[in-house]
Amino acid sequence: MRIGLLTGGGDCPGLNAAIRAVVKQGLGEYGHTIIGFRNGWKGVVDGDVRTMSREDIRNVLPQGGTLLGTARYHPHAADGGMDAVMATLEAERIEALICIGGDGTLHAANKVAENGVKIVAIPKTIDNDVAGTDLSIGFHTAVNIATEAIDRIHTTAESHNRVMVVEVMGRHAGWIAVNAGIAGGAELVLAPEEPFDMDRIIKFLKHRHRSHANFSIVVVAEGALPKEGSSMQYEAQLGKFGEIIAGAIGERVANEIATRTGFDTRLTILGHVQRGGTPTPTDRILGSRFGVAAVDAISRGETNVMTALRNEEVVLVPLEEIAGKVKHVPEDLLRVARVLA
Amino acid sequence: MRIGLLTGGGDCPGLNAAIRAVVKQGLGEYGHTIIGFRNGWKGVVDGDVRTMSREDIRNVLPQGGTLLGTARYHPHAADGGMDAVMATLEAERIEALICIGGDGTLHAANKVAENGVKIVAIPKTIDNDVAGTDLSIGFHTAVNIATEAIDRIHTTAESHNRVMVVEVMGRHAGWIAVNAGIAGGAELVLAPEEPFDMDRIIKFLKHRHRSHANFSIVVVAEGALPKEGSSMQYEAQLGKFGEIIAGAIGERVANEIATRTGFDTRLTILGHVQRGGTPTPTDRILGSRFGVAAVDAISRGETNVMTALRNEEVVLVPLEEIAGKVKHVPEDLLRVARVLA
Amino acid sequence: MRIGLLTGGGDCPGLNAAIRAVVKQGLGEYGHTIIGFRNGWKGVVDGDVRTMSREDIRNVLPQGGTLLGTARYHPHAADGGMDAVMATLEAERIEALICIGGDGTLHAANKVAENGVKIVAIPKTIDNDVAGTDLSIGFHTAVNIATEAIDRIHTTAESHNRVMVVEVMGRHAGWIAVNAGIAGGAELVLAPEEPFDMDRIIKFLKHRHRSHANFSIVVVAEGALPKEGSSMQYEAQLGKFGEIIAGAIGERVANEIATRTGFDTRLTILGHVQRGGTPTPTDRILGSRFGVAAVDAISRGETNVMTALRNEEVVLVPLEEIAGKVKHVPEDLLRVARVLA
Amino acid sequence: MRIGLLTGGGDCPGLNAAIRAVVKQGLGEYGHTIIGFRNGWKGVVDGDVRTMSREDIRNVLPQGGTLLGTARYHPHAADGGMDAVMATLEAERIEALICIGGDGTLHAANKVAENGVKIVAIPKTIDNDVAGTDLSIGFHTAVNIATEAIDRIHTTAESHNRVMVVEVMGRHAGWIAVNAGIAGGAELVLAPEEPFDMDRIIKFLKHRHRSHANFSIVVVAEGALPKEGSSMQYEAQLGKFGEIIAGAIGERVANEIATRTGFDTRLTILGHVQRGGTPTPTDRILGSRFGVAAVDAISRGETNVMTALRNEEVVLVPLEEIAGKVKHVPEDLLRVARVLA
Repeated sequence: MRIGLLTGGGDCPGLNAAIRAVVKQGLGEYGHTIIGFRNGWKGVVDGDVRTMSREDIRNVLPQGGTLLGTARYHPHAADGGMDAVMATLEAERIEALICIGGDGTLHAANKVAENGVKIVAIPKTIDNDVAGTDLSIGFHTAVNIATEAIDRIHTTAESHNRVMVVEVMGRHAGWIAVNAGIAGGAELVLAPEEPFDMDRIIKFLKHRHRSHANFSIVVVAEGALPKEGSSMQYEAQLGKFGEIIAGAIGERVANEIATRTGFDTRLTILGHVQRGGTPTPTDRILGSRFGVAAVDAISRGETNVMTALRNEEVVLVPLEEIAGKVKHVPEDLLRVARVLA
Repeated sequence: MRIGLLTGGGDCPGLNAAIRAVVKQGLGEYGHTIIGFRNGWKGVVDGDVRTMSREDIRNVLPQGGTLLGTARYHPHAADGGMDAVMATLEAERIEALICIGGDGTLHAANKVAENGVKIVAIPKTIDNDVAGTDLSIGFHTAVNIATEAIDRIHTTAESHNRVMVVEVMGRHAGWIAVNAGIAGGAELVLAPEEPFDMDRIIKFLKHRHRSHANFSIVVVAEGALPKEGSSMQYEAQLGKFGEIIAGAIGERVANEIATRTGFDTRLTILGHVQRGGTPTPTDRILGSRFGVAAVDAISRGETNVMTALRNEEVVLVPLEEIAGKVKHVPEDLLRVARVLA
Repeated sequence: MRIGLLTGGGDCPGLNAAIRAVVKQGLGEYGHTIIGFRNGWKGVVDGDVRTMSREDIRNVLPQGGTLLGTARYHPHAADGGMDAVMATLEAERIEALICIGGDGTLHAANKVAENGVKIVAIPKTIDNDVAGTDLSIGFHTAVNIATEAIDRIHTTAESHNRVMVVEVMGRHAGWIAVNAGIAGGAELVLAPEEPFDMDRIIKFLKHRHRSHANFSIVVVAEGALPKEGSSMQYEAQLGKFGEIIAGAIGERVANEIATRTGFDTRLTILGHVQRGGTPTPTDRILGSRFGVAAVDAISRGETNVMTALRNEEVVLVPLEEIAGKVKHVPEDLLRVARVLA
Repeated sequence: MRIGLLTGGGDCPGLNAAIRAVVKQGLGEYGHTIIGFRNGWKGVVDGDVRTMSREDIRNVLPQGGTLLGTARYHPHAADGGMDAVMATLEAERIEALICIGGDGTLHAANKVAENGVKIVAIPKTIDNDVAGTDLSIGFHTAVNIATEAIDRIHTTAESHNRVMVVEVMGRHAGWIAVNAGIAGGAELVLAPEEPFDMDRIIKFLKHRHRSHANFSIVVVAEGALPKEGSSMQYEAQLGKFGEIIAGAIGERVANEIATRTGFDTRLTILGHVQRGGTPTPTDRILGSRFGVAAVDAISRGETNVMTALRNEEVVLVPLEEIAGKVKHVPEDLLRVARVLA
């Protein structure tokens, strides 16, 4: 079979593990041909392809990013995009397409599937908010990086008697914030799942610094928002693609705390470091398992599904089941973050 | 309530996260008194106790080991051990006991529970072979360390055209070997779950080095064994406590490969580094969630259970359900290790 | 002898190694009494002291920050500050004072020395710009963190065809920028030592992206400035203490590149993570050697000196020799950053 | 010019940084042709060459090992080796040869230089015992790895009340042992520079464990030896190339301690992990500077020299000055290891 392969959306660690697994399993176990598209859907539209060989995937397992390149590009939103996609797939005689991506890529995959193309999707997003799977590629490494940063910031907070505000990624769900917050021992975690009450935060920090500590760490997801009608008025600032702007809520929270408590307060915006660098073993293994499973599924004729991890097992989930859904942090994990504060 | 707390068996990263969570949740949410026993069951027998305060758990989240100390000591196997345990628990007016440990500790906990003591167990073992839970404290960090070591050894293997044999922990199950093997891109993974065939290994290595590579990495779990009746005869070498001796099978495998292929072959035995150092975020979060859940369970009156992770949720499993069972690596994960070789 | 000890200025990794060495060497080798002042000069002014014991320094070697606390506080600038310092030193019968700090702390130390107090200074600054010593505590760890961040950002730059601008610390000297730039393989390094020419940068980036690469990494020290009279006008933005404001030049450089090249350009400001977390072995060893040398010097009667590393050896430098000087990155290192671009 | 390039001896992190710098500087600054020999002197003898291009060195900066391959092979010791070397160099019209290596490679380089070949050597050895330079490539990363291992082992030592013996590399000099020992806070460091007295070690450990601690860490360089005429008799065990066998002294020391103190004592032999994996920034910078300096030297006509770091500057040292010398750990550093125990 001729199988297409692309990575779309933001890059993250673990993509190369999935690419490598697709190529190894496709070539080795089944004798398929794997056609890689460069820079996500853009490469499909432009016909930018390469036939993948074993040489291409040498030594990529420990490397972040994606050897295929990626782009935030939506073929169904571009003029003539969908036609170009279909034309390329036909010209390259692609029998099935493996799309590694997050929300946007999966949405595009769904649209392409509606045109009769056989698709298997592999979920990746450091935000971990893709529905239907316990884990998406990239999230685990992001939590590691964010926790390491909080560990570092911790020593400065304590040495200088400061409130340190750390903004991490997470536009619609607070997975990184909650996990890194628990792992880093943060005093407060502000996540999109629970609109926060600035009055209570101020009261909590004042009480804490008065009675038994001289520093605090506050982790803020970039999509966190204050409660409606609360003392802090704020609406998410959006960029040109309608996405939440990094740094905005962190800056606002840090300013409120500084002004209303008088404590020496500093902000760190982790930014792009969260999505780069060598993947953790978990992300390498997840990518490897998803890649193998995707090729297996196609070879068995199961398509229009997404590979997913459930209960430590890799399963397949129908694409339509997950479209448009966001996976939120469950209440019991939010509670652990609260009670260990 | 007066709740006892101990850590038993081999130490590992993440124990302090669990201790911290027990103390924070016990004192903060319920107003319990937490009595820590030093050095596992030995401290119970000896009456070596301390009342835990918030000060004791300051800054311990990122630290490996256990602030309570631990020991490989089985009260039911020692003369008068069980009586001493009961005497101490009575003297300290312990109403429930939280035992953090692996096989041995859980076995002892079961014995103590039979005497009417209310127990909640928290599973820890870098081998990850405790039944009833997807994950035990310490395993995740061990995989990280082993993978990092394989990454390091990889560059030497390739630069010197060598076969590098790496022995990792795992007496009854190959969880570390399989996970670190996949994550590190090992060519061969030898696990207790699948007795290996040295003839096939030799054939595989000769073919590989002749046709398309000049180096190989072989990961061996310390409990791996050759197939019965196969060309390599070997029985597990046991130490004075009946445990498999570290290094024995690794040395044997390396020697066989060196002799039968003529390739330059080197052995690395990872040993104790696998169980030490700062825990990964996953182990910190797991320890934190288990600690909170254990205190919650006791406070609700649910005892003689073990905290467990299933499907990303923390649940409680009856102690008797898991006694004497070993959790093995599932076939689908073993297969991923094989097909990505 | 009764020896005072303080850490002043911004915290950094390696301070605890120096504190530990002062206490171990002071108590163990000479039987001195070590009096620790909390929060730098502020603690001297306030008389906030503790007698240091071996217990205080247990397990601190791998920990960032300073167990004594620190503050940016200048006694000679505060009303009555100098008198309060002298009063406390007399009240505590301090015979000599070990000051661990950077520019500000050394400046204050000089002032105090002029009042007849015997001082030994230990240089620390992640900026590495203290004159008279090859290395100051904290710098080495900061380079490690910055390099790791550039490694992470590298994979995103390459996967997305972007220009990534990374702002690192370094107000008066570009040590972190140049070292992390070389180690991370940055295409451009902008340091205070060499005012940059934005026209040439734009030309370089356009040529590079046209001819043989699709991404670039630009490392900017926070104190970097454009050439006078050049196409980019910019004056350093200063905070309330006259210090250069973090993020300002990075944002400006990223905007210029984005506007004038049209390339997708992103900014990362590393910020506080550069000064926290576990010290590298080099910083631990440096702190340990400086601590031992400071106590040895005092015990021999050599004071009003700073411990310094020269040619891999620890030596003593008169305080007055280094006052008011800034150590800049030498031309040959700047050249290596250039030629490897 | 046509410049040959080889890496010889054991591999280590930082070699690729040097290779990259030689290629970048050679091609970019001077327009030289760089001819790479595979697997050290073996490749020169066999005529196994490749012309190096910019593409060869893409992304190699953070990678351990050597992309040229290496081997422990001495042309002057092999029959006809020297003639084959000269024949290849002539056939390839090599005008100068850059040899990156340790003792053995430098020795061979000297022999080749005596035949009239123009040589510039770059020192690498994780043992750091090459004379004439403050630092050799690979050492710094090895110290990092060894320190990290000691950090890990520390938590187990403390949790289990054990004596942990850690054997690190260092056949003729104890640089890794002393540096990692200080950085890791080891209680005892046994280095080749100071024959040890087992009676005193036993006495020290017994006293320590009786009076104020329940664990100890002992770092042993593989070349450490007991004092002549002392209670412990031991002669270095040598392998087939006359090299000290890894693990031998560590095992012996651990056994002595276990037997004579009765303390629970465990041995870890770090082995090959010390020489692999991603280089520290220091090793990347050192390799980069040495590579640039080597090409500069040749281009200026300065040959039969070794690049060296002295007082933070890169200088050139005549090859004959360093032949047959071993650089030992200076007394003041040994003392710091002692006094901080």
